[in-house]
Order: sequence, then structure tokens, then C-alpha cells
Amino acid sequence: MKEVKIGILGLGVVAQGFLEMLTSQKQKIEAQKGIKLIVSKVLVREGEEKTTIANKYGFELVTDVKKITEDDEISIVIELMGRVHPAKEFIKQALENKKHVVTANKDLLAQEGLELITIAKENQVGLYYEASVAGAIPILRTLATSYFADNIQQLTGIVNGTTNFMLTKMFEEAWTYEQALQAAQEAGFAESDPTNDVDGIDAAYKLIILARFAFGVNLTLEQLTIQGIRQIHPLDVSGAQQLGYTIKLLGSLIKKDHHLTACVQPTFVPDTHLLSSVKNELNGIFLKSDGIGESFHYGPGAGALPTGTSVLADVLTIVDRQLDGSATARFNPYQQPVHLEKDPEKTNAYFISLSPQIERKISEVQAELQTTFPKTIAQVQEATNQVALYVVTEQLTEAQLAELLAELTNYGEHHQPLQLMEV
Amino acid sequence: MKEVKIGILGLGVVAQGFLEMLTSQKQKIEAQKGIKLIVSKVLVREGEEKTTIANKYGFELVTDVKKITEDDEISIVIELMGRVHPAKEFIKQALENKKHVVTANKDLLAQEGLELITIAKENQVGLYYEASVAGAIPILRTLATSYFADNIQQLTGIVNGTTNFMLTKMFEEAWTYEQALQAAQEAGFAESDPTNDVDGIDAAYKLIILARFAFGVNLTLEQLTIQGIRQIHPLDVSGAQQLGYTIKLLGSLIKKDHHLTACVQPTFVPDTHLLSSVKNELNGIFLKSDGIGESFHYGPGAGALPTGTSVLADVLTIVDRQLDGSATARFNPYQQPVHLEKDPEKTNAYFISLSPQIERKISEVQAELQTTFPKTIAQVQEATNQVALYVVTEQLTEAQLAELLAELTNYGEHHQPLQLMEV
Repeated sequence: MKEVKIGILGLGVVAQGFLEMLTSQKQKIEAQKGIKLIVSKVLVREGEEKTTIANKYGFELVTDVKKITEDDEISIVIELMGRVHPAKEFIKQALENKKHVVTANKDLLAQEGLELITIAKENQVGLYYEASVAGAIPILRTLATSYFADNIQQLTGIVNGTTNFMLTKMFEEAWTYEQALQAAQEAGFAESDPTNDVDGIDAAYKLIILARFAFGVNLTLEQLTIQGIRQIHPLDVSGAQQLGYTIKLLGSLIKKDHHLTACVQPTFVPDTHLLSSVKNELNGIFLKSDGIGESFHYGPGAGALPTGTSVLADVLTIVDRQLDGSATARFNPYQQPVHLEKDPEKTNAYFISLSPQIERKISEVQAELQTTFPKTIAQVQEATNQVALYVVTEQLTEAQLAELLAELTNYGEHHQPLQLMEV
Repeated sequence: MKEVKIGILGLGVVAQGFLEMLTSQKQKIEAQKGIKLIVSKVLVREGEEKTTIANKYGFELVTDVKKITEDDEISIVIELMGRVHPAKEFIKQALENKKHVVTANKDLLAQEGLELITIAKENQVGLYYEASVAGAIPILRTLATSYFADNIQQLTGIVNGTTNFMLTKMFEEAWTYEQALQAAQEAGFAESDPTNDVDGIDAAYKLIILARFAFGVNLTLEQLTIQGIRQIHPLDVSGAQQLGYTIKLLGSLIKKDHHLTACVQPTFVPDTHLLSSVKNELNGIFLKSDGIGESFHYGPGAGALPTGTSVLADVLTIVDRQLDGSATARFNPYQQPVHLEKDPEKTNAYFISLSPQIERKISEVQAELQTTFPKTIAQVQEATNQVALYVVTEQLTEAQLAELLAELTNYGEHHQPLQLMEV
């Protein structure tokens, strides 16, 4: 039976999930594809003690990447080290040595993807990274195949599991932001420095990769409007619940004519929308397009087995293409001219909660707000002996929102306004 | 620019949806793939008046299929006629003349798929039929790629739009079965003879195709347990609503060890499950597997543009493979040994509604039921001055259910028991 040799860079949980799935699916792969997939070498750091697992799966541990990238017998390299450096240099070496590469590294692909795609093309090898976005949801493959035949208007997704876990707990268990963060860290979802997750950076990286496949555009982090979840106040949560909404950190790409808006921000999602049913660490992506209409793609966004399965699916795609004798890197996005531009006329509805220090009678405040801002609705709620004021605005431009916020300071301190999802 | 010529068999709504999408995506396809897709000939029936549309898109109308299957310039044939004959014979001719074939014909693929797949393989051409199941949801491609690297335990789906539309109306508008059927016919979802839809045959055909991709087994209609929605009574609907369920016609494939159960039946789905959010004519498929865990795939199950887009995506896959110089028919399912066998020990929970002619006091009935059948819960509801009795059983084997039903006749006429979804 033909053998395909694989080298892996890194031996963390995802690599171990990949090894577990490869072992459990070995028989099926050999019977159906007629090939044996063999992991022959795995790169670990100097001094890392991994002999037990190396013995279990029967591969060689190496500490010099060249032992893999310059091994003529290895045709596929899987990078699972994470972070940008030295992963980028190692992948570059592998591609230049005509090895196909599979990676789950979103930071790298978001920031340095174009350069690596170009190197892969020049060397006529494949660069696959389905697992870098939304874990086991095959969204990149679906965008590259089903949606290539379509024109996408909107992609809106929950693509960061950590913050979605936190927001779920803040809603279902009434935990504070701090309690939710601690639980996420204890559950292993959030790192000790949670900045990339809670500030929306991780979601933004994924959105950059999705934008390539969905819209054929290459965005940089600076071009995105990014807002994290640190500012979400318990009053926002209770207000959302009373109004029939849940708060989700949504990444969204919306195309109108040739203009694209790209942002990551906590958003009020109606309880009736499919995205509101994405709970805990799961991910979900909602698409609107000319041909297909509305579709929804839901599954685990992370985890050793789901991510390992996604990496294995990419490896099998490469193997199919090797068997067919075609070595081009088809799994690359298309390009199209789209302008990323803020439209000052763009309007949104917002939710604003005001802190409870309101000295005047609520009925007066409400009356005044309605008079001064006919486009706002004020809802008054009584809870824990405090008075909270929730304002849901009608459609406002950013300038109009700024005006409203200035007026609202007359009635007490207001929290960060939260956008309502467009449906 | 390289030209790829296409022939279409049939010029109904899906063919027109395909032509519309091809035209709107023409520029993108040419720019990205460097090829021109040209529909050169379309087969219509003798006497069919389609010259306006032929002139609009610039193709030739033919009434003899050989003008397409024996045209050396045509490399891709799209079959959109529906029904088994003569579609089967025409596809066979096309494959034997080394043409790749794309079809949306579920009846044909479910019943005669194996023979056609074999002919495609022998002739080294592709046979693609993504649009035959769940319209624009790329479930076959996802099963053949992402899930090839995984072991699926369960596939449960809403794959018939007509009955889902009807059930949605019976729940949301309190329509009777008859009212819902009439509305489905007026909306163009149900045909004048709705047998295939309402009796679950259409869903069963789709399940047969899904079983090939998900489990590598070839089922026949006779091997499936099939139950339609004709028997759904308004009492079932109100009972479901009061208990926090909705009724959906689910097709399900469940694998335990090497045994597979395959059935289509109206099922009580908890309001909290993602499948309950699939409304009207939409489709949704829920999967459980070893590696990925739980995933959900949602989108339109029919319609001219969604189906046309799915057909176009298959055509583009063929074009990619032609460009790569590989002509094998990779989009075919794998095979694995799975036994289709009824397990007499298999248990399920059931919902049973009893018609309101109960002479004894409800409290007595309830007391007796609880005594006689400690594994049942009786719920008593008062509505429209009638008394209805809803029974939700605990886990019962089929034999135990039959016993219970015999006992229940003592308390009045009971309706068909409805299975509760396993979650």
C-alpha cells in the first residue's frame, strides 16, 4: 500500500487530537483511499518530555525543524505550534521544500497569510487551514465551493468560543464579567492573558480569513472596527433579557454594492435568531446571499478532537489531490475589488443602559427623552430596589448617536451603547 | 479563454435558476477560473414553447437528447427533468459518452444511484448530485470531506420542505392538516398528488442518499421505517405546545456499534433543540460524531435560485477537476459494513393523545394509569370545553408500547403515538 509520510510541528492538545483521530480512522482511510498515512516525525522543543506519546504512536521526536522540512520522504507538514514566529519561518521552509502544509494557526494566516499563499502557489503545493477558523465547522471549504457560485451579502458569526462561553454564563448564571472570565480560565478556554479573546482580536483574525474566502478581500486588523466584551455591565444583561435579546460577540462582514463593512462587537441578538442558540464555547456562522438565501453553520469552534478532525480532513484533501496527480493549491481564496469604507449615513439601532443614579422621577425622564428624541423608546425597570433605565434607539447614524449620548449624561452615567443586530 | 460547453436536460424552474446564477456569476468565474461556461443546448419536450428564454440566454433548444449526449463539444450534462425515467437512460447515455453529469434528481439517485455511480466510475467521469438532498445545504460535500475523517453516530434531519411548511403552519397558525396541505399546494411546495411528501417517501429517498455518504451503506426504501404526517391531529399539536415540544418530520440514521437504524417519522422535538428552529420550507441537518461532536447545517431545501446555485457549485467542482487534468469521479461515497437491523430491545419515549370521549373522571384515569403503568406520566388539559388526555411515556420497547396502547383503549380512542426525539 502506498505510504504518505507526515511531519508535525508541535505536540500540544490539537496534535494529540489529530493523532487520536488518525488512529481511529486508519482502517477506513486505508480501505477507501488505498493509502497509509504515517506520522514519521514530530518537532518538539529542546527538553520537552514527550517520549510516552512518541512511543504510543511510533514516531520520532526531533528538535531541529530541518529534520522535517528537509526530509525527502515527508510530503505533508502539519503546523500546530501556534503564534506567528517561528511558525511562519518553518511553514515557509516546508513550502519551499515542496511540502504541502496544513495549519490551524489563525494569527499567522490572518497576519501573514497572503505571503504564505503566494509561496505555496509558486511551489505548486497546497496550503490548507480550515481548522484556523471556527474549529470543526467546514466554513472555508463551503465558502470556496458552494459560495463561489453565489454572491454573499452578509456573513455574521460567533467565532470566539471563550467570549461566547463567558457571555452564556453571564446570561444563564447571572455571573459578572470577572466571574465568567475566571471560569473560562479554569475550564482552559481562556489563557492567563485573555486580551486576544476578550478584546475581540481573536475574532477579528478569524474575520480577516473569512473575508478572503467570502468576499475576496484582504483586510488588516487596523481596517476593522473592533470592540470586546470587557465593558458588558450586568445592567446590559438584564436589559437584554427583558427585551427578548441575548448579547453575543459578533464578527460581521456586510457588503452593500462594492462597499464592505467589517466589525467585531458585542451585539444584541434577538432570541428568535439562530445565532442566539449558539451557547457556551460553540461557534456559529450565519450567511445571506443572492442565490442560496440564508444559511447557518454550527459546531465546535475549538477542542482537541474537533480541531484534530478538521486538520485530518485537510490532510485527506491533499492526499486525494496527490492521488489524482494534481498538486496545485486550489484551496485559496479568490480576489475581488471591494472597498472598505465607513459610510457616515449608515444607521443602526442601539441599546443603552443608564446607571441607576437618576434623581428625577423616571416618568419625567421618559417624557423628556421622548420629547427631545422622538426616535427613542425608554423602558423603566425596577430590580433589586434600584431603578434602571434602558433605552433602545431607533436607527441612528454615528453622529446622531453621539448627540444622544451627550443628552443622556443629563440623566446619569450611561454605559457603552450596544448595537442591535440587523435582521 | 478556454470554453466549457454545457447541455441541460429540462427547462423548468431549477434550470432557470441555474441560468440566472450562471449569468450573474459569469464575470467572477471567468476572472477567477479563467474559463467561459457556455450553455449551448437545452433539451425540451416536443411542442414546449421556450424560445423566449432560449433567445435570452442564447442556447439552442433540442428535442432529441442525442443532440446533447452525442455532442463532442459538450463536456458537462445537467439533468433537471426529475422522475426516474427517462432521466436514468439519458444520464447513462451521457456518462457512456464520457460526459460529466450533475443532477438534482433525488428519486433517481436514491433508487438507481449505485448503477449510475458504477457507470460514472467505469467511464472515468464525475457524477455530482449535491442539489438532490437538502437543496443548497452542501451536506454531501461536507460528509464526503469533513466527515470522512470522522465516525458519525447520528444524522437527524428535516429534509422535506413541504411537510415542514405544513407542520409550521399547524403549530404557528393552528391550521388543520387539510388547511396546511391546501396552503402548501397554493404556495407551489406540494404537488397535486402530495403522497411522496406527506407520506415521508421524499424524505426517505433523501435519507437513502445521505446514508451512503454518512455511513457507507446502501439502503432500499423497504429497509426504512417510514411514517408520514397525515395522522397528526390538532390534539397532538396542542399537547406538544403545552409540553414544550414541536412536531417535525425527522429522517434519522443512528449507528450503534455496527447496527444502523433508519427511519422517517413525525417526532416530538424539544423547543430548545436546534432542529425546532427549522421553520417553513427550510431544511436542517443535525450530526453527532466522535471527532467533531455536534454540528448543525441549515438552509433552504428547495427553490429555483438555491437549487440552481448548488448545481452551479457542482459544475464548478467539475471544471476545477478538468483544469487540474484529473477526471476521476471522486464525489462518490465510501462503503462500510453496517447491518440494518431492528433491535427489539431498543426503547423510546412516546407522546400519545387520547380523544376527548372519556366518561370517567380524569383524576381516576390518571390514578389508574399511574398505577397500572408506573412508567407513564398523564397530563390533563382543559381546552375548548373538552377534556384531552396527553400521555408521555417513559422509555418503552415496541412490545411495551403495544401493551400500553391496548390498555389505553379502555379510556377512549387514542391517536397514533409519536416518538420523542432522543437528545
